[in-house]
Amino acid sequence: MNRNIHTRKIHKLTPENLLATDDFLAVEEPLEIKIVYGPKENRISKTISITMRTPGEDRELALGFLFTEGIINQPADILATESTIPSFLNQNTIEIQLSDDANPDIHRLDRHFYTTSSCGVCGKSSIDALKTIRMPKLKADFPVFDRNVILSLPSLLTQLQSVFEKTGGIHASAIFDKSGKLLLLKEDVGRHNALDKIAGAALQQGLLPLSEQILLVSGRASFELVQKAAMIGVPLMAAVGAPSSLAAELAEEAGITLVGFLNGKRFNIYTHPGRIL
Amino acid sequence: MNRNIHTRKIHKLTPENLLATDDFLAVEEPLEIKIVYGPKENRISKTISITMRTPGEDRELALGFLFTEGIINQPADILATESTIPSFLNQNTIEIQLSDDANPDIHRLDRHFYTTSSCGVCGKSSIDALKTIRMPKLKADFPVFDRNVILSLPSLLTQLQSVFEKTGGIHASAIFDKSGKLLLLKEDVGRHNALDKIAGAALQQGLLPLSEQILLVSGRASFELVQKAAMIGVPLMAAVGAPSSLAAELAEEAGITLVGFLNGKRFNIYTHPGRIL
Repeated sequence: MNRNIHTRKIHKLTPENLLATDDFLAVEEPLEIKIVYGPKENRISKTISITMRTPGEDRELALGFLFTEGIINQPADILATESTIPSFLNQNTIEIQLSDDANPDIHRLDRHFYTTSSCGVCGKSSIDALKTIRMPKLKADFPVFDRNVILSLPSLLTQLQSVFEKTGGIHASAIFDKSGKLLLLKEDVGRHNALDKIAGAALQQGLLPLSEQILLVSGRASFELVQKAAMIGVPLMAAVGAPSSLAAELAEEAGITLVGFLNGKRFNIYTHPGRIL
Repeated sequence: MNRNIHTRKIHKLTPENLLATDDFLAVEEPLEIKIVYGPKENRISKTISITMRTPGEDRELALGFLFTEGIINQPADILATESTIPSFLNQNTIEIQLSDDANPDIHRLDRHFYTTSSCGVCGKSSIDALKTIRMPKLKADFPVFDRNVILSLPSLLTQLQSVFEKTGGIHASAIFDKSGKLLLLKEDVGRHNALDKIAGAALQQGLLPLSEQILLVSGRASFELVQKAAMIGVPLMAAVGAPSSLAAELAEEAGITLVGFLNGKRFNIYTHPGRIL
C-alpha cells in the first residue's frame, strides 16, 4: 500500500449486520515548508507554512504554495529544491532554496501566518490585497469552451481519482485542455493543497499561465481556491460543489468564468458566461 | 435576506435550456479575532487569527476558537466581549477582552500562525503537542449510545440547516443528546469555524465538557476537527464523510468513538466501538 493510504481495522454497521473489517483512510500528515534565501554569504532559513496534507508530491505542493502566495514568480526564483528527510522529522519537512537574488517579501509572509487565504480584513480588502501582488486579470471573453466538454469532466475525474476510489475521503484538482483531455490531476485531504500541487507541477513543467485550460475542483469553490486559480491564470474554473459569495466576487474581478454545481447533466455559471458556447 | 446569504444573478444550464436566474450563495468574509490581555495598567491588544467565515455568531466563533486552541480555559478567563464595528472594518473585527489575570501563552499563539490546526511537524508530534495543553482523555467505554439514534442524525441535520437549504454550500456542526434531541447547530463555509461556533456557544452557556453528547459534522473528519472535538469533551463524534488517518489516530488516543460515512442506513466505527449499542 502506498504512503497516502492507511489501512485500519474498523467496524462496519449495515442494515444486515456489524462487521469487523479493514478500511482504507486517506493519510493526513503535516508538511513543514521552509525557504532558504538571501545572498550566498548570508543565507537565511525560515519556516513559512505548516500544512496538513496527504504525503506525495510534496515538492509540487511546496512550489505551488510559494507561487500562489506570490513568494516566487517563476522557475528561475528557485536555486534548487530538496526534501530534507532526517528520520526524526518523519519525511514531513521540505526546504526550497531560492536563488541568490530572489527577494521574498518576508513581511507578506508574516502576514500570511494569520490566515489560510492571504486575506485582509474584509472581502473588498481581501480582493484589493491580491491585486497588489501580480494576479493576472483576464479578458472575460476569450477563450471559448464547449458546454459538452464541461459536462463530461466530473465523470472523468471520478474515474481517475485513485486515492478517492480507495478512501472516499480526499479532494482533487485537475487541469483539462479545451477538448477535455486530462493534463494534470492531484489529490489531497486539503483542497487548497490539491490545487497547490497543480500549481507546482505546472510551474515545474513550464505550463504557466494556463490561459487556455480548465481547472476542475472536486468540492466547493472558496475565495482561497479562486485566488489560487487566478494566480495560475486559468480562464475557466469549475467546481462540483457550491461557490461562496466572495469566491464569485473574486472570479468576477479576475475575469474568470466560474462554474458551480457541475454534474454530468447541468451546471451553474456564476461569472463571465460569455466564454461558454 | 440575512447577512449570511448573498443573492447573485447567474445562468443555470440544464438539459432543457439556459436560464438567467437569481441564486443564493453562502457568504464568506474574513473575521479578524483580537485579544486584549495583561494587567490593567498595561493592556496589550493582539490579532491572533483572521479566518474566512460566514458572518453571524462571530462572538461564539471567537470564543470557541480561543477555547479549542487552549488560549482560554473557562468563562472566567474573559473580562468582557465586544465586537468592534467601525464601518471601515466592515463588521469583520472582533475583540475579546481577557480577564486581568489571564495569562495567554503568546508563544503558542505565534506558533499557531504557521498552521490552521495546531500541529507540530509530524502526526505523532501533532498529537503529543495537544497532550501538553489540557486535552481531556476520556474513558473509552462510557457513556453508551443507541445505534438507531446515531442513524437518525443526518436527516435531522439536513432538515435543520437553514443556510445549507438555500445555498447548498455550507458546513454544519451540531450537538445532540443521547436521545437524538438537537442542542446546538451552527453553520459556516469553514467546517472548523462551524465547530468553533459550537464550542463558543457551549462555553457561554456553561455546557462544557459535553461528556454525554454527540457531535455531528456535515463533511469529513480531519485531524483539526477531532482535536476541537476532544477539547469540548464529546465522547462520540460522527461525520457524514470520511475521516483521515490522523483523525482516527487522534480519536483513538483521546478516547473518542469516531463514526464516519454516516447516513440513514449505515456507518463505520473507526475507534472505540464499545460505546455503541
